[in-house]
Amino acid sequence: MGYKITLIPGDGIGPEIVREARKVLDAVGKKYGHEFDYTEILMGGCSIDAYGVPLTEEAVNTAKASDAVLLGAVGGNVGNSKWYDVAPNLRPEAGLLKIRKDLELFANIRPAYLYSELKDACPLKDEIIGDGFDMVIMRELTGGLYFGERHTESVNGVMTAVDTLTYNEEEIRRIAIKGFEIAMKRRKKLVSVDKANVLDSSRLWRKVVAEVSKDYPEVEVTNMLVDNCAMQLVMNPGQFDVILTENMFGDILSDEASMITGSIGMLSSASLGKTKLGLYEPSHGSAPDIAGKNIANPIATILSAAMMLRYSLDLDKEADAIEAAVAQVLKENYRTVDIMSEGMTQCTTTQMGDLIANHL
Amino acid sequence: MGYKITLIPGDGIGPEIVREARKVLDAVGKKYGHEFDYTEILMGGCSIDAYGVPLTEEAVNTAKASDAVLLGAVGGNVGNSKWYDVAPNLRPEAGLLKIRKDLELFANIRPAYLYSELKDACPLKDEIIGDGFDMVIMRELTGGLYFGERHTESVNGVMTAVDTLTYNEEEIRRIAIKGFEIAMKRRKKLVSVDKANVLDSSRLWRKVVAEVSKDYPEVEVTNMLVDNCAMQLVMNPGQFDVILTENMFGDILSDEASMITGSIGMLSSASLGKTKLGLYEPSHGSAPDIAGKNIANPIATILSAAMMLRYSLDLDKEADAIEAAVAQVLKENYRTVDIMSEGMTQCTTTQMGDLIANHL
Ligand SMILES: CC(C)[C@H](C(=O)O)[C@@H](O)C(=O)O
Ligand SMILES: CC(C)[C@H](C(=O)O)[C@@H](O)C(=O)O
Repeated sequence: MGYKITLIPGDGIGPEIVREARKVLDAVGKKYGHEFDYTEILMGGCSIDAYGVPLTEEAVNTAKASDAVLLGAVGGNVGNSKWYDVAPNLRPEAGLLKIRKDLELFANIRPAYLYSELKDACPLKDEIIGDGFDMVIMRELTGGLYFGERHTESVNGVMTAVDTLTYNEEEIRRIAIKGFEIAMKRRKKLVSVDKANVLDSSRLWRKVVAEVSKDYPEVEVTNMLVDNCAMQLVMNPGQFDVILTENMFGDILSDEASMITGSIGMLSSASLGKTKLGLYEPSHGSAPDIAGKNIANPIATILSAAMMLRYSLDLDKEADAIEAAVAQVLKENYRTVDIMSEGMTQCTTTQMGDLIANHL
Repeated sequence: MGYKITLIPGDGIGPEIVREARKVLDAVGKKYGHEFDYTEILMGGCSIDAYGVPLTEEAVNTAKASDAVLLGAVGGNVGNSKWYDVAPNLRPEAGLLKIRKDLELFANIRPAYLYSELKDACPLKDEIIGDGFDMVIMRELTGGLYFGERHTESVNGVMTAVDTLTYNEEEIRRIAIKGFEIAMKRRKKLVSVDKANVLDSSRLWRKVVAEVSKDYPEVEVTNMLVDNCAMQLVMNPGQFDVILTENMFGDILSDEASMITGSIGMLSSASLGKTKLGLYEPSHGSAPDIAGKNIANPIATILSAAMMLRYSLDLDKEADAIEAAVAQVLKENYRTVDIMSEGMTQCTTTQMGDLIANHL
């Protein structure tokens, strides 16, 4: 069967890692008899260079008309680049925020787990790691401070900036449902993170999560304050299965969680909405300093492609095959430089893509 | 000379640890010829029990009329206590927010450093710890989401909650100045943390910090996004000297930073305003589960008392003496249970207080 895939190579290492993911998808297609029909669109700095905006309406329409979107990364070094001396809505990252909003991708899923083969790269001590950890951050992605009204104005001669954090019960309910659904497929433990001792939006969040939880009596739910969660991630990451939280808290906590794995180059993510159409991207950024050197780790993007097969195209078997190939290549001790250690075989971006494609 | 000290024992382990800090202050007074005149006020759950509100106006006035305030901790187990089934402004923590606001304590200083004696308790691996770390989080404490307008209302039948994040340039300038002042007394490195790729308030923050930095040419300033900072704290804590940030980001990052030290029972904090009057408290909470057992670690509160002597009473020599006494007791291998390890001598809350007082 044929599937329409929008590819967004983006900036920095984006094009290199998306190329490898495409290589792996093609190998999957060949093996299982699927045709992937790719259309590339520009987003981020490359789109600014070409069109003066980080994402055109045409590009959005292309994405909307496809079955799924696979993204590399967008942006450069903030404050250090020609792309950043402009209004915020014209900067590379604005493309990412726009596509999330235009495609209504309200649910961002970021797995963070310890690879047993890469335990040495984990910054945490063995006593803290214990039996390892394997969690998923379910982050609300189209609400809160990111999309609230904002303005800067002079109040009696004093410049004053205002951002608004808004959530309504429907926005909270739909992300909470996604959180509980994923918890049901996992260890059935959900920690909802908020700042209910301060914020009205967090109190509404807590109330709606409690309501939704009634439909999932098997899931053990607890509430945790965001500051406490930032501590618990470092102290006892093994306690978490699913973390459900709003946009800004999710931004901070998912980055913290990905870093405690020690293998951010391995972590994929999915952004989902009401339809099957989703956007898939590595958890890491565009790493402009290593762009073009053929040393970036393509695994996070390749695993994002696997998530894409699973969530948007219902190709579970094919997704499993990619994940198994990645595991096998790691087991055979191949490593890109970011996860390199003694006794392993170092390989380039393209070599890693080839290895995974060949192991399918 | 005589000093008026307001003591707020608060809830949970608060009374036990404040008692030990007072013991140490009395010993300092005796040695150096100062008189500390204490008045106790109620705040938090104990005030709710006594007066139905977490902090009375009279209590605030007592605090205002004193030279400094020393606090234990307030609150209980959220969602698990008689104090929490009421409106948010009547809960224990509301007392803390009220006293910060009423005393205009806009600058919260939270040191986070690795005690070489307690390195084993640090959750990070030795390679990450490197030569250790020693940072200060300078958190804005009376603005942002904590004190913005908020409400919950039905919009076309859908419950909607709104919180507002507001900062004006004066609020940013005064905390930035405090941040640069403290950097000048330290290693002269300041990282200003914001989310300028999304928030208007962060863009104003960045602009004002850049302006203030011109008056401190010796201080090396960098901007860092909050999600990146959450990662860097785990990956390379040694890079930080002073972290300057707004209220909510500071709440999250300071808790993360305190946890990576592995010794949260040792970390003090100060909240300062325009005058000398400051509020001093341990970085940890009220730990209701261990309250009354005489096992809590009083060191964070004792070191907070030392900060109080230094910042509010200009008694530097006396503050140094307390810090030296704490260091000496640790060197002699005395430990409360939270920092206990093999070969050390375990002691109770009161024993630890006695030991430190006797070492002055
Ligand atoms: C680039 C930025 C706007 C974005 C965010 O804050 O959501 C990024 O940090 C992420 O987490 O995907
Ligand atoms: C208790 C709570 C309101 C408070 C805060 O969020 O400021 C606490 O977490 C702190 O950091 O002092």
